Amino acid sequence: MNTIDRRAFLQRLGGGLAAASFAPLPLLAETRQERKLGWAIVGLGGYATRQIMPQFKNCRFSKITALVSGSPDKARTLAQEYGVPQRSIYDYRNFDSIRDNPEVDIVYVVLPNGLHAEYTIRAARAGKHVMCEKPMANTVRECEQMIAACRQAGKKLMIGYRSRFEPHNVEAIRVARAQELGPSRVIVADHGFNIGNPNQWRLKRELSGGGSLMDIGVYSVQAARYLTGEEPTAVNAVESTDRSDPRFREVEDIINFQLRFPSGVVANCVSSYSSPHNRYRLVGTRGWLELEPATGYSGQSMRVRVGNTTENRIPPEPTRNQFVGQLDHLSECVLRDREPLVPGEEGLRDLRVMTAIYEAARTGRTIPLA
Amino acid sequence: MNTIDRRAFLQRLGGGLAAASFAPLPLLAETRQERKLGWAIVGLGGYATRQIMPQFKNCRFSKITALVSGSPDKARTLAQEYGVPQRSIYDYRNFDSIRDNPEVDIVYVVLPNGLHAEYTIRAARAGKHVMCEKPMANTVRECEQMIAACRQAGKKLMIGYRSRFEPHNVEAIRVARAQELGPSRVIVADHGFNIGNPNQWRLKRELSGGGSLMDIGVYSVQAARYLTGEEPTAVNAVESTDRSDPRFREVEDIINFQLRFPSGVVANCVSSYSSPHNRYRLVGTRGWLELEPATGYSGQSMRVRVGNTTENRIPPEPTRNQFVGQLDHLSECVLRDREPLVPGEEGLRDLRVMTAIYEAARTGRTIPLA
Repeated sequence: MNTIDRRAFLQRLGGGLAAASFAPLPLLAETRQERKLGWAIVGLGGYATRQIMPQFKNCRFSKITALVSGSPDKARTLAQEYGVPQRSIYDYRNFDSIRDNPEVDIVYVVLPNGLHAEYTIRAARAGKHVMCEKPMANTVRECEQMIAACRQAGKKLMIGYRSRFEPHNVEAIRVARAQELGPSRVIVADHGFNIGNPNQWRLKRELSGGGSLMDIGVYSVQAARYLTGEEPTAVNAVESTDRSDPRFREVEDIINFQLRFPSGVVANCVSSYSSPHNRYRLVGTRGWLELEPATGYSGQSMRVRVGNTTENRIPPEPTRNQFVGQLDHLSECVLRDREPLVPGEEGLRDLRVMTAIYEAARTGRTIPLA
Repeated sequence: MNTIDRRAFLQRLGGGLAAASFAPLPLLAETRQERKLGWAIVGLGGYATRQIMPQFKNCRFSKITALVSGSPDKARTLAQEYGVPQRSIYDYRNFDSIRDNPEVDIVYVVLPNGLHAEYTIRAARAGKHVMCEKPMANTVRECEQMIAACRQAGKKLMIGYRSRFEPHNVEAIRVARAQELGPSRVIVADHGFNIGNPNQWRLKRELSGGGSLMDIGVYSVQAARYLTGEEPTAVNAVESTDRSDPRFREVEDIINFQLRFPSGVVANCVSSYSSPHNRYRLVGTRGWLELEPATGYSGQSMRVRVGNTTENRIPPEPTRNQFVGQLDHLSECVLRDREPLVPGEEGLRDLRVMTAIYEAARTGRTIPLA
């Protein structure tokens, strides 16, 4: 029985499907040697250059083969550092000619949110698979267009939800599914930081689509959804923004929200651009599990309390890198023709929830979600 | 300069008044020997007999001089243990004759919530000062009647908010007022437990006035209010109750809520009868303070994070007992004719907020508070 048949068999035993849909793919069998797929990095800001690009050297199935930037000098320097040939440097005008570059299989869109839709759609039309950073886009409509474009082109689309490949978060999902704390009842998920420079793109509505919710509150939305494995049916929210603060002329500061799930779980969530938060707690009838920090680039830490005992818990493979996991996951999905764990539809679901959160805050009403 | 003059002087220096209004009275000067005031305990359930009564032996200004119970055997046994004379045992029929007992100065109402109003009003009419357990009553109207009855009788009324006398909570309030974490932005306050026996009075609406919110969620309401020192202006809430669970035929299980305060602080609060929670976190622009457990009978623990450093913080006088502090505070207020730190008006404010929380959950709307 090969790996794939065995997995299908185990799934038929029942219960496997739901659990499998929240865990990364098992790595390709060690004995099969596959080629590394070529990635084009679109947008060479701090997140791309400091967090993502340095991790390719640790990937099994992914390598950088092209760069796309509006800054020729920056692109040239990085191309040299990463061994990317000069012919594989693009700017935003000639980007579409990437269709003629056979060394590029996947385009990773790491641009400001307001540009995600355009570059995802252009990449799909150029015949490339796409990884797009979260939030997927500024609007639900854009998300739908991105999904349609990739489907039409017959290309994969994955959203950069790296926490789904981070070992502590993967373990938290496992604990929740296994009901080790009893049935889940309450989730508290808090994300925020005190944002600095008032002139950055994150504070310009056209580029960001919104304030703290789009940037950091999306982690609270995600945590509530992946810990329950359910979609919320109703949303409350309250916003608190000092409009005289030069940072918040266009976008919100604090927008805290409550999500109600079909199983009865309620999530209380924080999203803030003026205070530091990075944790979540899942509380069941018998105890709780907490990650703090929960969703940062590194340093995750987990505590579990059942009855009167609190323990630090080390997950399996605690040092597995979430960036590597995310990159190789999409490469593997392309190589094996599988649907990514977090496809465009997953980004679309978050946008629907976030749109409802904004509406709830604006109207002072509970907003139902289908 | 005696103690009282010195305090008045310091207050005139500015800033002192606001801070003083959230701190217990300083103890009476060591050199003044005062008599202990006599307390009648009304209701001899577990909270009275296991938590409150054993602490009187540690009080300077308070002693038990009467018991009121519907169980003559229980009352007799406890009277013997606490040296209460047989003539000072009352039942609920002859309770009003306590007016003729000069050894009783203060009546402590530790009955189910639905009986608080009746016994507070009867005690005031019997010429006694009153301590009443939280929540103050089932309704705002009852709270107003209780305040009116005590005012008409010229007697003190205090609500049993013991956390206000607990050293970690007192320190948390001090840190918040001093803005040691920068201006406050977000409060997360979670209280709950998995309630047992479906036949207990807490699950009967007539006696409890409601479910988790009245019993344990009230600690989240209090924490949000005493950490900000403000009154909320708007309330959101979501309820989640499995009505097929025999515990929740009459009252709610989970009712989570959001409070918005005039300074812009938003509090996200949990109230649950099906999952364990006892903590709060105050988050300012520069860091946070967390108590966990926060409001239990004992065992409080505090962590403070500023920048990248988290420390355990021991408050001044960490072993000061909250029950002793609460009992002696009311005795001192009577002896010195001062207004208690947490008078009836404080209980009334919580009832107004909790009534709005129920309305917000029921209507799916943000409820404004005057």
